[in-house]
Amino acid sequence: MNFEIIEGGVTSPKGFVSAGISCGIKKRNSKDLALIKSISPCNSAGVYTKNIVKGAPLIVTKKHLENKKAQAVIANSGNANTCTGEEGLKNAEEMCEYVARELKIEKEDVLVASTGIIGVKLNIEAIKNAVPDLVKKLDKDGYKDASKAIMTTDTFQKTIAIKLELGGKTVTIGVMAKGSGMIHPNMGTMLSFITTDVNIDPDLLDKALKESVRISYNRVSVDGDTSTNDMVVILANGLAENPLINEENEDYKLFLQALKKLNIEVAKMIAKDGEGATKLIECKALNVSSEEKGEILGKSVICSNLVKTALFGCNANWGRILDAIGYSGVEFDINKIQVTMKSKKGSVLVFEKGEPVPFSVKEATDILSEDVIDIIINFNSGNYNVCCWGCDLTYDYVKINGEYMS
Amino acid sequence: MNFEIIEGGVTSPKGFVSAGISCGIKKRNSKDLALIKSISPCNSAGVYTKNIVKGAPLIVTKKHLENKKAQAVIANSGNANTCTGEEGLKNAEEMCEYVARELKIEKEDVLVASTGIIGVKLNIEAIKNAVPDLVKKLDKDGYKDASKAIMTTDTFQKTIAIKLELGGKTVTIGVMAKGSGMIHPNMGTMLSFITTDVNIDPDLLDKALKESVRISYNRVSVDGDTSTNDMVVILANGLAENPLINEENEDYKLFLQALKKLNIEVAKMIAKDGEGATKLIECKALNVSSEEKGEILGKSVICSNLVKTALFGCNANWGRILDAIGYSGVEFDINKIQVTMKSKKGSVLVFEKGEPVPFSVKEATDILSEDVIDIIINFNSGNYNVCCWGCDLTYDYVKINGEYMS
Repeated sequence: MNFEIIEGGVTSPKGFVSAGISCGIKKRNSKDLALIKSISPCNSAGVYTKNIVKGAPLIVTKKHLENKKAQAVIANSGNANTCTGEEGLKNAEEMCEYVARELKIEKEDVLVASTGIIGVKLNIEAIKNAVPDLVKKLDKDGYKDASKAIMTTDTFQKTIAIKLELGGKTVTIGVMAKGSGMIHPNMGTMLSFITTDVNIDPDLLDKALKESVRISYNRVSVDGDTSTNDMVVILANGLAENPLINEENEDYKLFLQALKKLNIEVAKMIAKDGEGATKLIECKALNVSSEEKGEILGKSVICSNLVKTALFGCNANWGRILDAIGYSGVEFDINKIQVTMKSKKGSVLVFEKGEPVPFSVKEATDILSEDVIDIIINFNSGNYNVCCWGCDLTYDYVKINGEYMS
Repeated sequence: MNFEIIEGGVTSPKGFVSAGISCGIKKRNSKDLALIKSISPCNSAGVYTKNIVKGAPLIVTKKHLENKKAQAVIANSGNANTCTGEEGLKNAEEMCEYVARELKIEKEDVLVASTGIIGVKLNIEAIKNAVPDLVKKLDKDGYKDASKAIMTTDTFQKTIAIKLELGGKTVTIGVMAKGSGMIHPNMGTMLSFITTDVNIDPDLLDKALKESVRISYNRVSVDGDTSTNDMVVILANGLAENPLINEENEDYKLFLQALKKLNIEVAKMIAKDGEGATKLIECKALNVSSEEKGEILGKSVICSNLVKTALFGCNANWGRILDAIGYSGVEFDINKIQVTMKSKKGSVLVFEKGEPVPFSVKEATDILSEDVIDIIINFNSGNYNVCCWGCDLTYDYVKINGEYMS
């Protein structure tokens, strides 16, 4: 493998700077406004939520990406600017304008994102007043503050980068993301901003982004709720000076592989940091007859509240796993499947040939006490393997969402 | 309205007796075995879970109902007899045999149901030994013990009856049901046994059952998990001596209306008694363009963990309601809808014409502190009104399902 995951984030690729500050949308001086900027124009692509109810920033970003070009991204947390009518759209446009004016670029080259409570009007004055300071703070180290400024109920920052060699040049891809609640992406995720210095045609960039999102963010669920503001955007400024990727050659394939690897890492971070979660759950649907079926089966398991609460309780109640695949809508032969629960402490086979397999409850409880649990379902009916990621359902999920107006 | 909901249950119609005892499947001498018997043969119909993984009792009951006749139903709680292989099927058949022998009827005239943990072999000896005593205890008052004996995590018995007049005769329909967890019926519900003395053709009985299930149990969700053992059966012995219903005449329509009313009452009981629930949530999708769309929209709201936790916290976070209808997959015009939250303390309009409507958070919290909450979404785009029922998501749901091997 010639990829290397490195510490860093959206400023790791050449030519990108970033900043994150508090402008007053969130309480207690929490950081709530982030900016990413490339020193030169970028090819750019985005994928967005399929929710019919769409945040105003998504509508504006989509419009600004019609020419497949961008140079900066502004994002706020604490307010989703969604269900806020005409004024919401105007505010999202203004966020881009303030940044464009300060950076001396076109407002159409600025993308915008928001995350937080739905249905409350944005404090646009606070943002307007903060942008000059935000721009002043742009630097290479700013990815740390920026990734903090997009958090809502997240408990840790999601920032990472990957390096690869293309045509003798080092190419870097960086990312910052937020997750935690209302996470069940459908063609996007809560928020993920990806930067890279790769030199690539915009249509291939778009294709690679979509393909990587399909097998990463789209296979995560925290609570089954698809957000109104899910958005993944990528900016590629070409400063790595690798030979232009303008066909699906080896370089394209390598870049795609690296992008997939990066986004899977972030997807796992989002699942692990699910609201209130104590465990990352990986459901592996093995030897299924198509990728699509594997995804439906795997997602059905990670979305089941009964499976999620059982795992919170370290309770090897595998009947709930069979129940969840049974109502997924995908046909399968129950006599062919094997179900195994696994962690780094060991594994336990619980079901095969249509019959329960006796096991030690004590041993199973011990295995399930770890913080990464694999549920492996071998369907023995095809050649596709699909992994989906989720988390347990805990008292804290109820507490966070019963109390917090997010 | 010439229907009257009355106290009672499966023994309220003429000619039915029932009993419930403890046979030792559940711990602490809890009741776990129930029997319903008609003194004469009944026309009978059933609807079953669409889960691919089906409990052994469902397979046996379906087979025994091929001739549309039945005279008795045996049911146990504490063990679902599901994912138990060939032995499970044999055990379900044997449950019918023991009852048939004792009642001196054909085993094909006995229906069987089980609810409880999946994947554990049934203690069939305990059932065999208990059947003679169970039969001895059959009487008119036995509906109380029987409805207790089918409970798992239920906190109250679900037993009720309704009376109506048909052709100058009094017809009675009685029901006992269980709900609580793994409740997201799809063509059935956890367990519901309906008895009636109406005189009706078996095909029309089947049609009325399916139609009533569609708009009652199929519109309930506690946790989004469709059980492997969902089953609704109805037995009609004809002893009311009303003129035989053999076409869709006025009498049929009245009977269907009464059956719908009865099953909606039970559906609401099941939602209210959702595991850990403190509130019944009714989501009313008004003025939609089809019943099917209304059902998808309403179910999307009552299934949303974020809506459910918000309501547990008496938190008027209506953005989550818009989010849930937005990802339901049904198209709608956000500028046409009105969203209202209501309880017996009053109502609050929170969204209309694409914009939030200012409201008093204090007043809204007070309204949401009640134990029956209506979420009313007027889509203003058609003539269909659909109601779906659910409950809040609480600490106790997590506790019950993290600890209890159900």
